[in-house]
Amino acid sequence: MGGSGDVGGIKTVMVVIAMQAEALPLVEALDLVEDDLSAVFPGGVPWKKYSGVLDGLNVHIVVPGKDKALGVDSVGTVPSSLLTYAAGVALQPNLIINAGTAGGFQAKGANIGDVYVATEFANHDRRIPIPVFDKYGIGTIVAIPTGNLIKDLDLKEGKVSTGNSLDMTLQDEEHIKANDATVKDMEGAAVAYAANLLAIPMISLKAVTDIVDGTKPTVEEFLENMSTAASALSRTVPLVLKYVSGKNVADLDCS
Amino acid sequence: MGGSGDVGGIKTVMVVIAMQAEALPLVEALDLVEDDLSAVFPGGVPWKKYSGVLDGLNVHIVVPGKDKALGVDSVGTVPSSLLTYAAGVALQPNLIINAGTAGGFQAKGANIGDVYVATEFANHDRRIPIPVFDKYGIGTIVAIPTGNLIKDLDLKEGKVSTGNSLDMTLQDEEHIKANDATVKDMEGAAVAYAANLLAIPMISLKAVTDIVDGTKPTVEEFLENMSTAASALSRTVPLVLKYVSGKNVADLDCS
Repeated sequence: MGGSGDVGGIKTVMVVIAMQAEALPLVEALDLVEDDLSAVFPGGVPWKKYSGVLDGLNVHIVVPGKDKALGVDSVGTVPSSLLTYAAGVALQPNLIINAGTAGGFQAKGANIGDVYVATEFANHDRRIPIPVFDKYGIGTIVAIPTGNLIKDLDLKEGKVSTGNSLDMTLQDEEHIKANDATVKDMEGAAVAYAANLLAIPMISLKAVTDIVDGTKPTVEEFLENMSTAASALSRTVPLVLKYVSGKNVADLDCS
Repeated sequence: MGGSGDVGGIKTVMVVIAMQAEALPLVEALDLVEDDLSAVFPGGVPWKKYSGVLDGLNVHIVVPGKDKALGVDSVGTVPSSLLTYAAGVALQPNLIINAGTAGGFQAKGANIGDVYVATEFANHDRRIPIPVFDKYGIGTIVAIPTGNLIKDLDLKEGKVSTGNSLDMTLQDEEHIKANDATVKDMEGAAVAYAANLLAIPMISLKAVTDIVDGTKPTVEEFLENMSTAASALSRTVPLVLKYVSGKNVADLDCS
C-alpha cells in the first residue's frame, strides 16, 4: 500500500464500519455529525457518513447502511469494498481504518473484548483449485507496519482471515488455519483490497466478540458480547485517531 | 431494478466479464477498441475497457483485469462489484449485461455450451444464521423480466447461485439447492447487487463450461470447455446486443 499519508502527515482519516451498532457509540464518542450524502455518492445507496474534526484531524466514519430490501446492516465483503472504494475516491483520506467486531481464536491468545491490529489479511472462503488462482483466492495482503502504534497504545496484533459467513465450515477452518489467523471477520480483506486499489494506506482494528474455538455457539456469543466489543472499539478508535493525527504513515512503525 | 432504459430506449450497454479469455473473442467479434482508462477511473486499477458502436448501440466491455500481485484474472464477487459500480457511475449505461462462463446442473437440464439468461440471483456462501441476516446473506435479487428476449433468441432461462469458490462444499450444495439454481457462477449476484445500487437494469448471460452434478472433476471440465463456452458467448452476446438496441427495457418481456 502507498504512503499518501507521508506528504505532510495524516490529516484525513476514513473509518469503515460494517454495522450501525458498532458505529454509533463511536459517532457519539467523537461527537460526529451525519452528512447529507447526495453530494458525495450518486444514486440511492444506503451508505451513511458521519464527520467531524478531532484535534485538527478530519474524521469520516462511513457505514454501508441498512439493506434496502431487508433493513439489516449490509455486512460482508461486497458492500464494504464498494463503500471503501467509492468513499475513498470521494474523500481522499490519508489513512483508512476498518474497525469492527470479529471472532478470535483462544489458541492464538484472543479474549473477549481484545482489540487487534491486523498484520495481514487473507480470505478463507475463496477456494479456486487452479495453480496461481488458488493464491489469488486466498488473496493475502500484508498490512502496513504499525509497530509503534501497537506498542504505544498497548494493542494486540494478529492476522485476519475474512469470509462472508458468521459460521465456520470444516473447509473454512482449514483455510483459516492455513492463513495462520488470530481473528476471523467478514470484511477486513475486502476493505484492504479496495484500499490497495486506491493506493491508500489502511489499518484494521477488530474487537473480539466471540471465541471461535471455544465451547459457546458463535451466534449467541456474538450477540451477547456485541456491546462489550463495541465499547472497546469506541474507547480504542479515538485513541488511535489521536495517535495518528499529523504523523506520517512511516512513523506508525518502529523499524 | 429501475427502468433507466425506458427513456428513449437502450442506447448504451455495459458488458461486465470476469475473465480476459471470455472477453477477448467478444472484443474481436464486435471489433471493439481498448480505451485509455486513466480518464475514466482514478488510481492504478487493473480494470480494462473495450468500446465501440454496434448498429448505433454504444457498447462497452469492462473486465476487472489481472490481479496486480499475481497476474491472474480478478474473478469473484468483490472485483466484479467494484468494477460494475465504478464503471456504471462513469458510463451511465441503460443496461448492464454480466456475461461469462459458469457451472450448470444437469438435473435442471443444463448441457455444456448452453447459454442461460438469469431469472434470479442469490448467494450460496454467505451463511449468517441470525433471523433476517440469514435472508440478507442469501441476498436474492429477481432479474428484470426478459421473456421476449429469451423466446426470440431461443435462449435458456434459470436461476443463478453465486459463490467465491470454483469447487462446491456440502454446505454450498445445500444452499445452491435451496436457491433452486440451474447455474453456479462466481460473480452474478455481486454484479446484480452493484447494478441494483445504481438502479440500472441488468441481465446475465452465462455459458455452461462444466456440469456440476456430473461425473467429471469441475476443474478439468472447466478448463477443457472454456473455449467452447467462450465461443457460445461470442455468438450470443452480439445477438443480444442487436436485440436490445433501441428497445425499451419493458419490451424485453412478453407480459
